[in-house]
Amino acid sequence: MPMMTAEDLAAFMKREFPQSHPERNVYEKVGNDYVRMRRKVDAGDLRPGGTVSGPTMMALADNAMYAVLLSRIGPVALAVTTNLNINFLRKPELTDLVAEARLLKLGRRLAVGEITIFSHGMEAPVAHATITYSIPPS
Amino acid sequence: MPMMTAEDLAAFMKREFPQSHPERNVYEKVGNDYVRMRRKVDAGDLRPGGTVSGPTMMALADNAMYAVLLSRIGPVALAVTTNLNINFLRKPELTDLVAEARLLKLGRRLAVGEITIFSHGMEAPVAHATITYSIPPS
Amino acid sequence: MPMMTAEDLAAFMKREFPQSHPERNVYEKVGNDYVRMRRKVDAGDLRPGGTVSGPTMMALADNAMYAVLLSRIGPVALAVTTNLNINFLRKPELTDLVAEARLLKLGRRLAVGEITIFSHGMEAPVAHATITYSIPPS
Amino acid sequence: MPMMTAEDLAAFMKREFPQSHPERNVYEKVGNDYVRMRRKVDAGDLRPGGTVSGPTMMALADNAMYAVLLSRIGPVALAVTTNLNINFLRKPELTDLVAEARLLKLGRRLAVGEITIFSHGMEAPVAHATITYSIPPS
Repeated sequence: MPMMTAEDLAAFMKREFPQSHPERNVYEKVGNDYVRMRRKVDAGDLRPGGTVSGPTMMALADNAMYAVLLSRIGPVALAVTTNLNINFLRKPELTDLVAEARLLKLGRRLAVGEITIFSHGMEAPVAHATITYSIPPS
Repeated sequence: MPMMTAEDLAAFMKREFPQSHPERNVYEKVGNDYVRMRRKVDAGDLRPGGTVSGPTMMALADNAMYAVLLSRIGPVALAVTTNLNINFLRKPELTDLVAEARLLKLGRRLAVGEITIFSHGMEAPVAHATITYSIPPS
Repeated sequence: MPMMTAEDLAAFMKREFPQSHPERNVYEKVGNDYVRMRRKVDAGDLRPGGTVSGPTMMALADNAMYAVLLSRIGPVALAVTTNLNINFLRKPELTDLVAEARLLKLGRRLAVGEITIFSHGMEAPVAHATITYSIPPS
Repeated sequence: MPMMTAEDLAAFMKREFPQSHPERNVYEKVGNDYVRMRRKVDAGDLRPGGTVSGPTMMALADNAMYAVLLSRIGPVALAVTTNLNINFLRKPELTDLVAEARLLKLGRRLAVGEITIFSHGMEAPVAHATITYSIPPS
């Protein structure tokens, strides 16, 4: 059972990470070891050739992993990313991005998840990431 | 011999990627298969606990890799990142970040480099990345 | 539709990669952008503490990715791995390993897939990899 | 100052990991956060097209990282790989492989290093890896 709802996640992010533009993110679904979130793309995210920047997708992947981790362990602001690996698969459309994060492992010290990113409404993923977080001793 | 100087890189980035805040970046040194750049950290890059955000470091690593690639092949705006792997090693200071990028391989289709990121003036790295770019057929 | 069946894959691997111990591998299922294979673990794969070696799992992940790629493009011996990222999640049991490979992208030049490895009969994965292959020009 | 010499590493590996063919490895140099090792390639490591297998290089990278970690913390058999990322850069020659491992971070719980692999006598690297080990609580 998740320890945080979509509303909990949105409130936590707004309070703890105001600089990360939490108003552009919607946590659409929180399930068992699963979070789906949607990010509104704005002008600052765009790049030449009519696409969304890589850093925008990396930030989204990291955010989605953090959300699925928090959904299991509760609001622990000090968990930190230790490793992120991302493959950019296709050119994103100029539309919202959707990220689906799944937790692969939740240990006492490390959590690992995989995140697939889509352009909203499309079936083929635009990026895929695996991310490790270090969990502080409690 | 590099095909672009530090000034060439700065002018190209300003022209092609105005949304990526090129005014915060200084290309300090362009050598053989090597670029060192410095990025001014601003309020939007900060995170709770007095540190710099992971996405800021990922964007910097990607930018430095792109710069060292362009320094070899010239201003090819359409080269794209296909894979990025980053390890976050230490908490950065609240100061400028410095990235050193080295090209490990320049093939006809793929280029691979490694990037080490430091807090300005510190010896121990805060992050290390390896990045692959796909080079469009000419 | 796959271009190679499980039997085709087994025959190809036996012929082209006799040194990689193809007799220990069984291709159990070939689907759309999906291969499941099983590898018999032998004494050389074991490590202190009663576990299976990391290199055994890396070789299996690479083999499974190659199989799912071949199932789409046919028997192209010269496709080569360009990047492999693996997270080791749990200590494997002393039993056969099962790998499930899914193709995330098949481009003209690059193919990317993700591979999840299980100890046979267990639900929680022991490792997860993402792998990129470069496809030679035809 | 390293806590283990090249001879210490060779003896430890032979004792603890007899299945990993320690007789093929020579620890050539142990420095500050640095190990250089050489691996004799044998027939089982070869692949079609006259090259060395990817798994051979992955196993070597992992071994070199383990060696540089042990050189700092002493003979801790239970440190385990949690993440390995490798880029294959060039086709290796049919000759010994040389790996240079550098420790990027040694924390209480995690150690991160980078490893560059060469064909013996060649200047351009054939592969580059970054690896994370988890260090058990003492």
